[in-house]
Amino acid sequence: MGRKHQSIEKPVRAAFQGERGAFSEEAAKLLLGPNVEVVPCPSFQLVFERLAAGEVDHAVVPIENTLHGSIHENYDHLLNFHLPIIGEVNLRIVHNLIAAPEMTYAKVRSVYSHPVALNQCLRFFADRPLIQREIHYDTAGSVKMLMETRQPAAAAIASSLAAQFYGAKILKRSIEDDRRNFTRFFLLAGPGHSAPPTVAKEWKTSIAFTIRNVPGALFRAMSAFALRDISLTKIESRPLRGKPWEYLFYVDFLGRTDNPASQRALDHLQEFTDDFHLLGSYPKSA
Amino acid sequence: MGRKHQSIEKPVRAAFQGERGAFSEEAAKLLLGPNVEVVPCPSFQLVFERLAAGEVDHAVVPIENTLHGSIHENYDHLLNFHLPIIGEVNLRIVHNLIAAPEMTYAKVRSVYSHPVALNQCLRFFADRPLIQREIHYDTAGSVKMLMETRQPAAAAIASSLAAQFYGAKILKRSIEDDRRNFTRFFLLAGPGHSAPPTVAKEWKTSIAFTIRNVPGALFRAMSAFALRDISLTKIESRPLRGKPWEYLFYVDFLGRTDNPASQRALDHLQEFTDDFHLLGSYPKSA
Repeated sequence: MGRKHQSIEKPVRAAFQGERGAFSEEAAKLLLGPNVEVVPCPSFQLVFERLAAGEVDHAVVPIENTLHGSIHENYDHLLNFHLPIIGEVNLRIVHNLIAAPEMTYAKVRSVYSHPVALNQCLRFFADRPLIQREIHYDTAGSVKMLMETRQPAAAAIASSLAAQFYGAKILKRSIEDDRRNFTRFFLLAGPGHSAPPTVAKEWKTSIAFTIRNVPGALFRAMSAFALRDISLTKIESRPLRGKPWEYLFYVDFLGRTDNPASQRALDHLQEFTDDFHLLGSYPKSA
Repeated sequence: MGRKHQSIEKPVRAAFQGERGAFSEEAAKLLLGPNVEVVPCPSFQLVFERLAAGEVDHAVVPIENTLHGSIHENYDHLLNFHLPIIGEVNLRIVHNLIAAPEMTYAKVRSVYSHPVALNQCLRFFADRPLIQREIHYDTAGSVKMLMETRQPAAAAIASSLAAQFYGAKILKRSIEDDRRNFTRFFLLAGPGHSAPPTVAKEWKTSIAFTIRNVPGALFRAMSAFALRDISLTKIESRPLRGKPWEYLFYVDFLGRTDNPASQRALDHLQEFTDDFHLLGSYPKSA
């Protein structure tokens, strides 16, 4: 019938939590290229559900932030959904003052954004007592809202991608208090995914496990890595509620699971763990 | 002149971040008793500044949450301000539907709260499509706002303390999705504080340190505790931005610093650390 092989040209679809122009969308474009077709979702739960159901090829979710710590909710989803991590990226969170194209900086009297973003720009507001902070549900969503309402004297705080996506103007770049504000995102693949042989200099593997009775047990568990000179890049304990003295550990180490040393380390480790979860191996991000 | 010794009766003053009725105020009352005089502050930075300046006797700050992880911002303040931790408490975060006394549950059409609280009650909203979510700057602040405006058909999501403090009514208790939502708070003392001899069954000590070159170094550092059968209750690595391969570690262990085994463990540990910070010893919370 002369149909084209559309599957070849079908763009990659990736789900993320938030509105179009969110920092997660920025991460998705870094991980999957500028042509990725993004699917915004109202909650992380839905992001994982859509990926598990095969409605999208990938999901991009934040996992930790240098100011706010690990996002345990997404670790919980990783443990529940068993969808492999196949990539990571560290994104610097740059907050920009954004408004409709007809606005100028001197006219701004109120600034809309998510409370976390407003709180990360306290110096900007302290130096400008005439400018009011107004809360909105989402950073990128506040730009969308202003472009729809054209409310006078109002601006938003969001990513440069949000300004670009909604056709708004950046009035002032990088107004955040702390430039060491980075969010690490994971790229996840769907259930049937088989990892293509990626050429990468360094690999990371993420695992999660529980151990009872921490003092000696964690030390013995960690010897699995120390004895093989395997570098850990993350270790974090999380108390399990309702199970005193039982902890969930998140560990990231340098290496691929199909490398013999990593494999022996994981075998050794599992002698000391109760539950053990391999979350994925992926090229290490810069 | 017959003046009373007011200093004896002077209530203890404690700073916290948020509006009156916040979960931090609930934690302050659990830690310091119902008669504590609380001083609400708009930011964590101000909470620490007021305690450092001697304007309050104590501060109560959240340090980690079972869903959202460690609050690195407050760890940063602990490292910068050198104010000792002298207590801890774990508070279950119970979200209640709250409204002005004349309201009834059937009338509710919009619910105001902080976006994080709204997102922790998604099941409530999914089951009630006629009820709109409206964002507010603060959980307790949304109760305060409704009591002032008496907006019809509106309710808020906040702590039971907020309902009590503002004279509002709880329409529905515990509407949060996940009952394993706990926040751990630290009680801090001012600069001149000398810890009174508290009788406590078990003590915890919190420390923070940096180590370069993680693989063997962390393992050797941890041997300081493992060799002395000292139980760790928390371990967490945090990458230091701009210093690749250098990590900040947070460790909590069971024991008091003035106990000889703990003292030897800390001496041993410091052979392997670069920076070392003793954050405080305090009675372990249930």
